[in-house]
Amino acid sequence: MKYPNNLTKTYKNPLTYKNRGMDLENELNESNDYYREIDKALIYKKPTPIGVTDVSYTSRGKVIDRGFFKEPSTLDYNGLYRGKYIEYEAKVTKNRTSFPLANIHPHQIQHIESVLKHKGIVFLIIKINEMVYLLKGNDFIEYINNNDRKSIPYEFIKEFGYMIKYSYRPTLDYLTVVDEIYFKEEAM
Amino acid sequence: MKYPNNLTKTYKNPLTYKNRGMDLENELNESNDYYREIDKALIYKKPTPIGVTDVSYTSRGKVIDRGFFKEPSTLDYNGLYRGKYIEYEAKVTKNRTSFPLANIHPHQIQHIESVLKHKGIVFLIIKINEMVYLLKGNDFIEYINNNDRKSIPYEFIKEFGYMIKYSYRPTLDYLTVVDEIYFKEEAM
Repeated sequence: MKYPNNLTKTYKNPLTYKNRGMDLENELNESNDYYREIDKALIYKKPTPIGVTDVSYTSRGKVIDRGFFKEPSTLDYNGLYRGKYIEYEAKVTKNRTSFPLANIHPHQIQHIESVLKHKGIVFLIIKINEMVYLLKGNDFIEYINNNDRKSIPYEFIKEFGYMIKYSYRPTLDYLTVVDEIYFKEEAM
Repeated sequence: MKYPNNLTKTYKNPLTYKNRGMDLENELNESNDYYREIDKALIYKKPTPIGVTDVSYTSRGKVIDRGFFKEPSTLDYNGLYRGKYIEYEAKVTKNRTSFPLANIHPHQIQHIESVLKHKGIVFLIIKINEMVYLLKGNDFIEYINNNDRKSIPYEFIKEFGYMIKYSYRPTLDYLTVVDEIYFKEEAM
């Protein structure tokens, strides 16, 4: 597939903070591709919600001439694992001492509470100090409900989070951690 | 929110077959909003996957200057209901005697098989002859595997599908049908 040259320019643009998350996103996409290949889980990144304000019709189909990025109200990844609903958000912070809560929108916090209530598996994957942690949704909500701080201290993440290890394939084997946390009682 | 005038023009454009499905899509979105309001289920339409080829940065944030619609490999709606993973596709046909299989992409058919294998609830919602039917994923797959036709006869949909009734709120109460089919054995 051919793209216009300016795509490359876009990716290199240092203005957007989102690009800081690209590595983690790629690592998780690779891991999810692998999990699907070996038929272990069906987990996808949801497309970024986009508002389309202008389209045109070309010989190759409908094309977007103007659009904008919307604020997400759910989490980035969801799917099906071992018969269970699973949903999570992945975030990178350059901050060394804490994870700023501004990374998670208020709607997303409400959504995490809803998923817990409806008995889904929900968590955050946080990359901080080049380490990757899974923080359970209920630990995250409990922290928020009991603290006025605008960030989660790294100490809290180290104590309550579960470290996810890098490997060859999958790049980030987070489902092994999910097994330990959520499927402990069942036979593996 | 203000849109440029040509948005209206776009919606009225009769060239795109997709617009035929807009009514059903709105009916399902309204129903899912209602189910969330009464805290019955967390089901969302996934954003249409879009490839962004050109963006610019304005004072109001990142804006898309060029993009295209990608072919979906999963189904349109997914979420969580009564602790279970649920996923479905909604399609309208103007055809009175059968549902053309060209409406469902080959990747989506594979995906339906995968969801069944991983024990998710998966189905199609088909609007045909102004009636709305839920067709279970396994009945759909069985039809495809045992027939060479490029469409599913209306007779098959009437026999194996479950009719979904219109009501005030939710507009389309498809979860009542899901209860009957998938949660029969459990206490309601």
